Amino acid sequence: MKIVVVGSVAFDNVETPFGKVENVIGGSATFFSVAASFFAPVSVVAVVGRDFPEAELGFLRSRGIDTEGIETADGRTFRWTGRYHEDMNLRDTLDLQLNVFAEFQPKVPRSYRDAEICFLSTIHPRLQKSVLSQLDAPRLVGADTMSHWIEQTRPELEALLGGVEVLTVNDEEARLLSGERNIVAAARRILGFGPKSLLIKRGEYGVLHFSSDSIFAVPAFPLEQVFDPTGAGDTFAGGFIGHLAKTGDFSVANVRRAIVYGSVMASFVVEDFSLNRLRTIGHDDVERRYRQFVALTEF
Amino acid sequence: MKIVVVGSVAFDNVETPFGKVENVIGGSATFFSVAASFFAPVSVVAVVGRDFPEAELGFLRSRGIDTEGIETADGRTFRWTGRYHEDMNLRDTLDLQLNVFAEFQPKVPRSYRDAEICFLSTIHPRLQKSVLSQLDAPRLVGADTMSHWIEQTRPELEALLGGVEVLTVNDEEARLLSGERNIVAAARRILGFGPKSLLIKRGEYGVLHFSSDSIFAVPAFPLEQVFDPTGAGDTFAGGFIGHLAKTGDFSVANVRRAIVYGSVMASFVVEDFSLNRLRTIGHDDVERRYRQFVALTEF
Repeated sequence: MKIVVVGSVAFDNVETPFGKVENVIGGSATFFSVAASFFAPVSVVAVVGRDFPEAELGFLRSRGIDTEGIETADGRTFRWTGRYHEDMNLRDTLDLQLNVFAEFQPKVPRSYRDAEICFLSTIHPRLQKSVLSQLDAPRLVGADTMSHWIEQTRPELEALLGGVEVLTVNDEEARLLSGERNIVAAARRILGFGPKSLLIKRGEYGVLHFSSDSIFAVPAFPLEQVFDPTGAGDTFAGGFIGHLAKTGDFSVANVRRAIVYGSVMASFVVEDFSLNRLRTIGHDDVERRYRQFVALTEF
Repeated sequence: MKIVVVGSVAFDNVETPFGKVENVIGGSATFFSVAASFFAPVSVVAVVGRDFPEAELGFLRSRGIDTEGIETADGRTFRWTGRYHEDMNLRDTLDLQLNVFAEFQPKVPRSYRDAEICFLSTIHPRLQKSVLSQLDAPRLVGADTMSHWIEQTRPELEALLGGVEVLTVNDEEARLLSGERNIVAAARRILGFGPKSLLIKRGEYGVLHFSSDSIFAVPAFPLEQVFDPTGAGDTFAGGFIGHLAKTGDFSVANVRRAIVYGSVMASFVVEDFSLNRLRTIGHDDVERRYRQFVALTEF
């Protein structure tokens, strides 16, 4: 099945306890699409500035990613600068320059419209809705959001949620969206807003998946060194949606396997800055780590 | 197999976001022994004051717990007063009165000495060592510790660890004991101190188990209401050691099942204050929740 993803393509400056990089490729759509490309064809809707290197678009295409929907606009590419604490569950955004993203109006190419799966990374819910409305009839719609949109655009976000099969948030966003402190109570309330299921991403503590009749929990892969958590959530979503697209099987059991594949991809991306680790691994590495997840959790 | 546990038997005053109780029964040996009593015979070594109600000792005996080693000393029973934050992963100790515990010199009754399993709850490592030396030849020794002993009695603690099969700590204690921030690196270093395996208790995020050749992760049971986390770690240890004692099987696969039984017992105890929830459940409830753990984690 074909996936369409909308989100950011960006330059990041990142500092972690292990080092510092500048002007590396980031953005939610980038992490998502590279992770998903291990499993299924992905088409990206995004905007970059005139400063975005052709070589990076070439890298995406070399992974079979369709970049027709990445518009190049006058101006500079979206830039994010962040610094992680020694406890890498915490980070500060030091600088955020929307640049060409400020005026982004997603245009979905005609060739994308028959996509069976759509993933709406965290952008303004109005833009998420706009992408959705330009697709013919996706069978599965996933969406991500973040505190900024929950606080600033709640009515538009809630309107979107009715049309979403699976929403991804972190603990803090789940609490903010629901008004509930307890994470199970928060999940129940969010499911009441419309999504069929909810994925709560908890960083080094793994993922919880809630639907009306099932809860699934998978730990994060215990890594001796987490180098840079940037993009872990988007990479998780890419692996998750990618496996669903590859198999076309949305059963409960296969959704669980997809969540593990998402966790596998996220466990790789945090081992180096930017997308670097995903550039070095192959399908064998993915399958090997999937088996390590089995060994980690079976009893 | 028979279990001997040494630890505190106490009165607690506890305040959580859901309520407040005073003078309820607590203490590491109490939570441990009641949880373990669902699986195997337990004998307790502890001290209480003259104020300790005979009815509570009667409750322990009604669960088949051997209380011969609970000495009654002149003075008052150990008392702990604590308050949990809205984020119940955090708590403040408001008051701590050692009382009779200050002069505690554990005396292991003759009838306990042939115990095959020994669990040393978090008391001064010298006292943990003393209990161990009074036993004939336990086949399995587990121990717990906490930041206070790591900071104040490190040489004695490290000396103890060489004779311990399984050590239980939380994230913070693992970091303090190892000097490593990353939890996998911390575990590797702690295994270097002597214990054959390490259980890291992470509260609402579950448990990690490390040995030289295996890592096992199990999530906490997702509860809609966590009422009072007091004693969860000791209750976990009781269920864990209890299942090992019941089965006499220390294989990797059975240790994993034991960790899940520990998680099952902990998931019950946090549903009410003190030991209240453990007073109301039976073996059927334990087995039902074990199957819910299977459903929660299988993929």
